[in-house]
Amino acid sequence: MNIIIGRKPVLEALNSEEEIEQVYILFGQQGNIINAIRVAAKKRGIKCNQIPLERFRTYTTDLPDRQAGKNAQGVIALKQDFKFSTLDEILRKALSFGEGLGEALILILDEIQDPHNVGAILRSAECSGVDGVILTKHNSATITSTVVKVSAGATEHLKICQVNNLSQTIDELKKNGFWIVGSSFENSKNYNEVDYKIPIALIVGNEEKGIRKLTASKCDFLIKIPMSGKIQSLNVSVATGILLFEILRQRQLN
Amino acid sequence: MNIIIGRKPVLEALNSEEEIEQVYILFGQQGNIINAIRVAAKKRGIKCNQIPLERFRTYTTDLPDRQAGKNAQGVIALKQDFKFSTLDEILRKALSFGEGLGEALILILDEIQDPHNVGAILRSAECSGVDGVILTKHNSATITSTVVKVSAGATEHLKICQVNNLSQTIDELKKNGFWIVGSSFENSKNYNEVDYKIPIALIVGNEEKGIRKLTASKCDFLIKIPMSGKIQSLNVSVATGILLFEILRQRQLN
Repeated sequence: MNIIIGRKPVLEALNSEEEIEQVYILFGQQGNIINAIRVAAKKRGIKCNQIPLERFRTYTTDLPDRQAGKNAQGVIALKQDFKFSTLDEILRKALSFGEGLGEALILILDEIQDPHNVGAILRSAECSGVDGVILTKHNSATITSTVVKVSAGATEHLKICQVNNLSQTIDELKKNGFWIVGSSFENSKNYNEVDYKIPIALIVGNEEKGIRKLTASKCDFLIKIPMSGKIQSLNVSVATGILLFEILRQRQLN
Repeated sequence: MNIIIGRKPVLEALNSEEEIEQVYILFGQQGNIINAIRVAAKKRGIKCNQIPLERFRTYTTDLPDRQAGKNAQGVIALKQDFKFSTLDEILRKALSFGEGLGEALILILDEIQDPHNVGAILRSAECSGVDGVILTKHNSATITSTVVKVSAGATEHLKICQVNNLSQTIDELKKNGFWIVGSSFENSKNYNEVDYKIPIALIVGNEEKGIRKLTASKCDFLIKIPMSGKIQSLNVSVATGILLFEILRQRQLN
């Protein structure tokens, strides 16, 4: 876990794109910057809690005196230090796999926001043997400690990369021989009517909205899971599991 | 929501098998029975919170004077009043279905304990068109408000029954023409190598231990999902989704 120390550094980190997991403010701290920190954290949905000195010191006690001095101005932020892979690393793994390109499989999460869903999806992805997972950088849960925990160890074994521009990434994947398969209810075929013995990048989308229109427009196939009941809506992590294991099932049939 | 009023009734309910969702203790209440209530609630993993009089009265205000008198002795417990079906009702639905017995499908949860998992499974079950879900009464999450929420409305549409003795229930299902299919890693076939165009009761088991030995011994088939990665362990709600939709996939193929 990385740590950011002091009022201005924490505020700056909050206002930039830095991936912060948690802000702690020492009890009794007040003032404009503290208020600004609270507002910035809230805006980004980052937890911001007051804690007593004793607990606060558990975070600052290992720091050099200069930084820990005056109790780090009463503000620290914790960063998750997950090591992301690059798209190139994922592509190299996918393309070098012994079974040949036909077995390549990349999973793309288009703005999935709930850390429990992301963690559960990563767990299923690892179990299905994907070559890597691509997350959109904006409007997505990143690899927080909740994600790590829910993933049941999958984050340690998976190559995961974050991309700013999914549209460009899709072009890059197509150039490398991937077929882009998106999960969508509109204009889609049944998921079990597609032949997955080709290199595939499977895209699943946001819990409420599904994959974005632009994303869907770049897909080679759109697929859906036909359902029988009244609520007609699977949890995205369950739906992703069903799709990944249908791909695996087809590939395991000779 | 049902309510249990007073110290002794709440303590008795906690010590019996009653399905309690939440205990509230009025601020300032003390004494041996209060302590015993706390201990009993903790032991069963039931939330037990102190609340101020104003909030406490929101629960007791509709009660007859006699019961609300003296503020219900400062203790109430809330019960979920989900209306369970009977096994007969589920069997009747399964056996009367237009498509014939071949399409009958019942899901059995053998000691699944996490309410999030139970909720997610019920959601998938409803989407896959099961005729009903059977829960073991002991060591299982019951239909709490978390389960209802996570199920995304599925609990309103599903027939769900609780059974004390799963072994007897399995015998009853067999007598009615069901084949019992258990999810298990030991002595099992790949899940996609079984023909599901028969009346099926699918059993999935506890998060840590899987289905119990006795349960497994009564199954006609044991099935597993072959995996590719290192962690080799799917979340039970994802695994259940994959199994249910494989059954549905096979039945939708003509």
